[in-house]
Amino acid sequence: MKAWHDECAVFGIWNDPEAGRMAYLGLYAQQHRGQESAGIVTLDRGAHISRKGLGLVGKIFTEDYLEALRGNSGVGHVRYSTTGNNQIFNIQPLTAQLRKGPLAIAHNGNIVNSAPLREELIASGSIFQGTSDTEVLMHLVAKSKANCIIESLKESALKLEGAYSMVIQTGKKLIAMRDPMGFRPLVLGRRKNDQGEMSVVFASETCAFDLIGAKYEREIEPGEIFWVDEDGEHSERFSPNVPLARCVFEHVYFSRPDSFVFSQSVYEARKKMGRQLAIENPVEADIVVPVPDSGVPAAIGYSQESGIPFELGIIRNHYIGRTFIQPSQSIRSFGVKIKLNPHAEILRGKRIVVIDDSLVRGTTSKKIIALVRQAGAKEVHFKLASPPTTGACFYGVDTPKRQQLIAAQKSIEEIRQFVDADTLSYLSVEGLMEAVGKDSKGYCAACFDGKYPTRLYNLDK
Amino acid sequence: MKAWHDECAVFGIWNDPEAGRMAYLGLYAQQHRGQESAGIVTLDRGAHISRKGLGLVGKIFTEDYLEALRGNSGVGHVRYSTTGNNQIFNIQPLTAQLRKGPLAIAHNGNIVNSAPLREELIASGSIFQGTSDTEVLMHLVAKSKANCIIESLKESALKLEGAYSMVIQTGKKLIAMRDPMGFRPLVLGRRKNDQGEMSVVFASETCAFDLIGAKYEREIEPGEIFWVDEDGEHSERFSPNVPLARCVFEHVYFSRPDSFVFSQSVYEARKKMGRQLAIENPVEADIVVPVPDSGVPAAIGYSQESGIPFELGIIRNHYIGRTFIQPSQSIRSFGVKIKLNPHAEILRGKRIVVIDDSLVRGTTSKKIIALVRQAGAKEVHFKLASPPTTGACFYGVDTPKRQQLIAAQKSIEEIRQFVDADTLSYLSVEGLMEAVGKDSKGYCAACFDGKYPTRLYNLDK
Amino acid sequence: MKAWHDECAVFGIWNDPEAGRMAYLGLYAQQHRGQESAGIVTLDRGAHISRKGLGLVGKIFTEDYLEALRGNSGVGHVRYSTTGNNQIFNIQPLTAQLRKGPLAIAHNGNIVNSAPLREELIASGSIFQGTSDTEVLMHLVAKSKANCIIESLKESALKLEGAYSMVIQTGKKLIAMRDPMGFRPLVLGRRKNDQGEMSVVFASETCAFDLIGAKYEREIEPGEIFWVDEDGEHSERFSPNVPLARCVFEHVYFSRPDSFVFSQSVYEARKKMGRQLAIENPVEADIVVPVPDSGVPAAIGYSQESGIPFELGIIRNHYIGRTFIQPSQSIRSFGVKIKLNPHAEILRGKRIVVIDDSLVRGTTSKKIIALVRQAGAKEVHFKLASPPTTGACFYGVDTPKRQQLIAAQKSIEEIRQFVDADTLSYLSVEGLMEAVGKDSKGYCAACFDGKYPTRLYNLDK
Amino acid sequence: MKAWHDECAVFGIWNDPEAGRMAYLGLYAQQHRGQESAGIVTLDRGAHISRKGLGLVGKIFTEDYLEALRGNSGVGHVRYSTTGNNQIFNIQPLTAQLRKGPLAIAHNGNIVNSAPLREELIASGSIFQGTSDTEVLMHLVAKSKANCIIESLKESALKLEGAYSMVIQTGKKLIAMRDPMGFRPLVLGRRKNDQGEMSVVFASETCAFDLIGAKYEREIEPGEIFWVDEDGEHSERFSPNVPLARCVFEHVYFSRPDSFVFSQSVYEARKKMGRQLAIENPVEADIVVPVPDSGVPAAIGYSQESGIPFELGIIRNHYIGRTFIQPSQSIRSFGVKIKLNPHAEILRGKRIVVIDDSLVRGTTSKKIIALVRQAGAKEVHFKLASPPTTGACFYGVDTPKRQQLIAAQKSIEEIRQFVDADTLSYLSVEGLMEAVGKDSKGYCAACFDGKYPTRLYNLDK
Repeated sequence: MKAWHDECAVFGIWNDPEAGRMAYLGLYAQQHRGQESAGIVTLDRGAHISRKGLGLVGKIFTEDYLEALRGNSGVGHVRYSTTGNNQIFNIQPLTAQLRKGPLAIAHNGNIVNSAPLREELIASGSIFQGTSDTEVLMHLVAKSKANCIIESLKESALKLEGAYSMVIQTGKKLIAMRDPMGFRPLVLGRRKNDQGEMSVVFASETCAFDLIGAKYEREIEPGEIFWVDEDGEHSERFSPNVPLARCVFEHVYFSRPDSFVFSQSVYEARKKMGRQLAIENPVEADIVVPVPDSGVPAAIGYSQESGIPFELGIIRNHYIGRTFIQPSQSIRSFGVKIKLNPHAEILRGKRIVVIDDSLVRGTTSKKIIALVRQAGAKEVHFKLASPPTTGACFYGVDTPKRQQLIAAQKSIEEIRQFVDADTLSYLSVEGLMEAVGKDSKGYCAACFDGKYPTRLYNLDK
Repeated sequence: MKAWHDECAVFGIWNDPEAGRMAYLGLYAQQHRGQESAGIVTLDRGAHISRKGLGLVGKIFTEDYLEALRGNSGVGHVRYSTTGNNQIFNIQPLTAQLRKGPLAIAHNGNIVNSAPLREELIASGSIFQGTSDTEVLMHLVAKSKANCIIESLKESALKLEGAYSMVIQTGKKLIAMRDPMGFRPLVLGRRKNDQGEMSVVFASETCAFDLIGAKYEREIEPGEIFWVDEDGEHSERFSPNVPLARCVFEHVYFSRPDSFVFSQSVYEARKKMGRQLAIENPVEADIVVPVPDSGVPAAIGYSQESGIPFELGIIRNHYIGRTFIQPSQSIRSFGVKIKLNPHAEILRGKRIVVIDDSLVRGTTSKKIIALVRQAGAKEVHFKLASPPTTGACFYGVDTPKRQQLIAAQKSIEEIRQFVDADTLSYLSVEGLMEAVGKDSKGYCAACFDGKYPTRLYNLDK
Repeated sequence: MKAWHDECAVFGIWNDPEAGRMAYLGLYAQQHRGQESAGIVTLDRGAHISRKGLGLVGKIFTEDYLEALRGNSGVGHVRYSTTGNNQIFNIQPLTAQLRKGPLAIAHNGNIVNSAPLREELIASGSIFQGTSDTEVLMHLVAKSKANCIIESLKESALKLEGAYSMVIQTGKKLIAMRDPMGFRPLVLGRRKNDQGEMSVVFASETCAFDLIGAKYEREIEPGEIFWVDEDGEHSERFSPNVPLARCVFEHVYFSRPDSFVFSQSVYEARKKMGRQLAIENPVEADIVVPVPDSGVPAAIGYSQESGIPFELGIIRNHYIGRTFIQPSQSIRSFGVKIKLNPHAEILRGKRIVVIDDSLVRGTTSKKIIALVRQAGAKEVHFKLASPPTTGACFYGVDTPKRQQLIAAQKSIEEIRQFVDADTLSYLSVEGLMEAVGKDSKGYCAACFDGKYPTRLYNLDK
Repeated sequence: MKAWHDECAVFGIWNDPEAGRMAYLGLYAQQHRGQESAGIVTLDRGAHISRKGLGLVGKIFTEDYLEALRGNSGVGHVRYSTTGNNQIFNIQPLTAQLRKGPLAIAHNGNIVNSAPLREELIASGSIFQGTSDTEVLMHLVAKSKANCIIESLKESALKLEGAYSMVIQTGKKLIAMRDPMGFRPLVLGRRKNDQGEMSVVFASETCAFDLIGAKYEREIEPGEIFWVDEDGEHSERFSPNVPLARCVFEHVYFSRPDSFVFSQSVYEARKKMGRQLAIENPVEADIVVPVPDSGVPAAIGYSQESGIPFELGIIRNHYIGRTFIQPSQSIRSFGVKIKLNPHAEILRGKRIVVIDDSLVRGTTSKKIIALVRQAGAKEVHFKLASPPTTGACFYGVDTPKRQQLIAAQKSIEEIRQFVDADTLSYLSVEGLMEAVGKDSKGYCAACFDGKYPTRLYNLDK
């Protein structure tokens, strides 16, 4: 339904006799970040074992696959979308056998200068298998003259611009690396394994730690390379300090509400967005109703701040599969209706505040409001717990092009008319920053304010 | 997770050029009532077309299947569980070619005297294909000497004891029939089809009407047989008045909160159960947290009545597939954890009221409370928005045997110790009846109070 | 390729601890008699276990299925084609739970008066699940007042007209029964099982015995009912003697050349047809080439009788799957070419005798002759090791309707022109009877001579 | 059954509007050369389209796949076995996007010095995706400084030792290249396409031409590189003349009997081997029986030379799938029996000459002879239409290691005793060379005579 998707999650674990199964669970918990493909690579006695597939984690990884994924260390990846015609080559973790041994990379984010780097590498005789920007890093490392893999990675990373939160498995080390601006989250935790020893774990979101019973310790810092091997743990900064550009949309929509992202609770951040929305945009109404599931925390915040009662006036059907066959045209707003059923008994005759997290094209919001009106609502006040989205993302998020974003084309009043709400209000950029905390200068909000923190290399969106 | 399942939903539609597709949607909306198998039978120029399968509606019905299901009238069925080794024969709607023409029956409920009836029929030379109690009715109708199908059905129904809400397709009529005690819901609605004519629709729950844009009109009355054919609509009572025995668990758990069941909103009934629970069992606490998703309406009611803030402190993961591979034993309470993640940021240090709809064996509740404690809760007050379940159901619900019901074996204090809550409280039977309304004498609450409204024929549960 | 198909094979085994696996092997060996569906029913401690499916034996029966098919006795069936929209119900063995216990029937043949019998049964209240003529027998047995199953079967069989070679599993007995005219083959054998005890086995063809290491003993006689149970073996005649009508096409094409059918080697019978063809239709030629695989034995016979060398001038490709995608129209005679490649090196400049077993519509023969000519043959003498097929079969063979049989519409000279052969000759009916042996009066050759041995009940072909 | 497999076939076509479908047919006809995987790459407006999969051609290429494979030129490949854990990367044609444009290689044969070349390339920063020796050539071409692809290929080919018959698709050319010794076949043909224009086609065997109606023109010469592009056809020699080493086993077993290989009919060559065998090893016997299907041509030759009648005394079952479930141990020689049924009626009491093409381990032959004896043969004279296999192959054939070859371990008399034949005889190497023609010096018979025509680089077999 949402036309704004995070593209990936990563996971890594060191020193666990069931590393493959832990990776499976870590990906399962992060399934919301990517449903198109998944893969796991483990390290077993110096060699890599890899299993990948298209689809959901629970479908791809059979008992046979998990049985095969022996070893004490491993990395995993889920991915939202794959492009190109040979998509199988793009499923991560990407793997290669280099002079320095086996290498497997799981990457969340997008490298904005991958096209020029790729051209250079092909001209020098490198053969690319897929279309992934991650493969560029692979080749840079393969060509590097540096003596050890850490030096090769640091040297190569300095050629990259853009977003990369990575977990990397070599033949001897497990490595986590995050770009200097820190676009995407990457967290470090520890878990007591079945032998009573401590495992080191990395993930995109802390919800992966919760599922496997690991304890969250801290973020991998922007510009940090952290690795663990037989000699223990190591950490270095590989870049000078630069202004941070953490993705604020992680708090708005991408991350799970039970995750801790950029050192803050997502649920609490969303509730604060809802509270702030109530402060900025008060309205007289009878009930506050969220668009489920993502609008629920903000609606609770709005209700608590405004004192207007919270009701689950729109019910979500959780049996929706991927292959649902559309009915004839005669059923209006069907695409939304199959998922969301407004409950007339609750809504009839009421003045309703409907809360959603964001509004991208407006077509879904328009349908929801129509359904709420058909159910008998007297007034519909549509409130978004984020600012108008006016720009595409180039840092690892799958977004529509700028011309498809309604807020880039229309005024708020025009949008209100389009979605047919009695009133329509957005959270301000300032309000959003207030909600995500004091160090809000460290966020990238380019999709709201157009201030892109890197060069864009004529990327087309 | 819940060991208490409704076994079926039915659907029927008359006079719609896309009857097959409407049935598909009607079943999709009622998928929560049965996920093991589904089937649709349409009537096309006097002949039946049937498509059935094991699994979810969205998997079974491909475009090919829907294309094949031509006709202006049809019935559909989803089923929770099939038993026996030739389960394909048990998938409903059951069909047969009788002397009087084709017959297809979709049945929700359970006939308690099917075993003795079956024995009699076999002795007289009838061949049964499956193990379904519905097939008994099929054979009674086949043997009936009555001249028309309506008379045959009425005559046969009088031999049945127990629960049957049925939709039946013949070669010329669409029929709805509900047992005299009215155990299971069955509703009548109308829909303006693409030709601008009115269709007649039947369903177990009104949420099926909402999806296809039909208007709810009324319940099919207990003891009523209603049919529609070329001559129009007809209704008769086929049995004398008897005390009603509508299933109160439909309001407690089975039905979707956005449905209207037994002439009442399920969401509102659950909120009232939550309010009543707050009145009967007040406690000092910081937040009210539902076990999602079924505990949400009662928790909202509890919060509104008590004034204690509502928080989504336990997050549900909606990506759980059917084939999830369990991890090693080292991860405690895993079965629950993969679905539910308590959000430590919200729960830590707080006194929590946890609200669930019911408690069957206690094992899941025990795990949920453990997770909430691990997340840092100071106190856990576990409250059930229904009374202790002390008896099995024989009227179309798949329940554990009596000896597996914790409330049939232990006192409330023992259950509290078992689930490790600081306090544990149930709603009273009186409170429950209060919540579902004034005519609460018309409900079957045998699973709570042991008062079975029919003979039980040594059924073993 | 051949438009003339046998519809079934049956198998039965008594007293073998691996009855299910033996049935699997017995069906595998008889796969050529039916490729559309297969099923096995075993008897395990008084109850039946059934596994069925659409497709080839090797696909349907997984290790799981074979594991499930426990028991010491069982019957199996492969089927060529299923009709009707609920084909799953037609897969044999058909099973039912009767008053006398479980019954499973595997049937090869066709009952010509099934339609009137069916009508009678439905009028008396019987419910039919499928469209199979075998189900008629099932209901006759269910309604029979006779005290034991053998008497019920005998009484019911006397109401049937047409072809039925059957193997039947009850709760206590394994039964073989063959219609009085003996249309279809049915053989009895014995096998020493792993415990050193003797098993009794039944099959349509002896090749099933060869695979499992059983010894062929004799045919089940036309009009014989043979059964084995805890009390040993029993045999009775259930009908008076009538003239036999064994299907001569079993020798012409249906049976495997390594089978012994109607007390005679199929390979030898076909070689004799080839020899007889050489005697009746001598020609001057350089080589004899069979249409593989079915034409090979007759071609060897022709070569031996005529002294003209045998060459494998047409090579068959055995990798043809079921889902081959046709190329564009530009490749002539493709349907045949993908299977058969004439070998130019052998054929070029030669006078060729091409031998095939039979000619139904003529379209395939026309294509084969065209390919042989393209490969450079100087003359093509097309010879059929059977007479012209001028009538459809109603006794369990899937044949085209009479108007689609080229020999029913055209003279031999017209057929020769149509297939574009230099000469075309058929074996005479007398020559065919000579080849199949002295008691040739006992054969049905209705498809060649139009003399149908039963009433036809307006069957439409 | 045969433990000696050819590993691949290739196909290429230029200037055909249905290039993808033609490649599909060309691979289908060559399916006997590789059943593990298949792939096709077409050239559509300068870009490559690729579709690959594991399994048989008829399974992999759906209508969707063929629809996608647009373009006027293309290459295809079938492969016998893939090794390594990421086998998907080894499915051919291998593809890459080079500086010079897209490149797709289909390769039959094996490069014996690929290991040292691979090491060098990895050390210089090349990333290998799979384990295929073909990928080495890909990287050599990618690194080549030569200006055009033809020069790069010629330059790279001179670094290779071993067997390579290749068809290569670039962005503008279709190229065929064969190693200087000519180990594997590679043929050139032409076909008039639907527009009336001529297409150029390449294949491993001429049977691919027959299926699509192409005309065989000549072999691609050993050491020749032939290409076709917008400027027409071109041919060059890229290596000096060296002694030829064409694989004699292509005639003995690999190629289809209807193919023309190394300028000679395979069927005729096999018949000559049979004739030669009769001359070298006469015996008194009643009938000559082939082990079907591969022994048939040699048995016909033997019969014609010796005058002993040819009989199809062993019947092959063509319904054997890949997943056949083995029965219990009690059925002797089962693995063979499921495929081959000796026909007792023919064999009983006779002195039999059994002809097979070759004998690798002896275990299958032993089982066949046992079955023939059980069927009642009086004497079994087992004759092989090739010499004893005493060495493994390193040139693109999957063979057992030397120690598993019975003829490398035992004398002929010991083998006779092992397989339990009355007499056992092989064709002499000289006799084999006589059968394949006058220029028999140009053959590699290393598996028979141990004279390997290249260095072996410590390859382990």
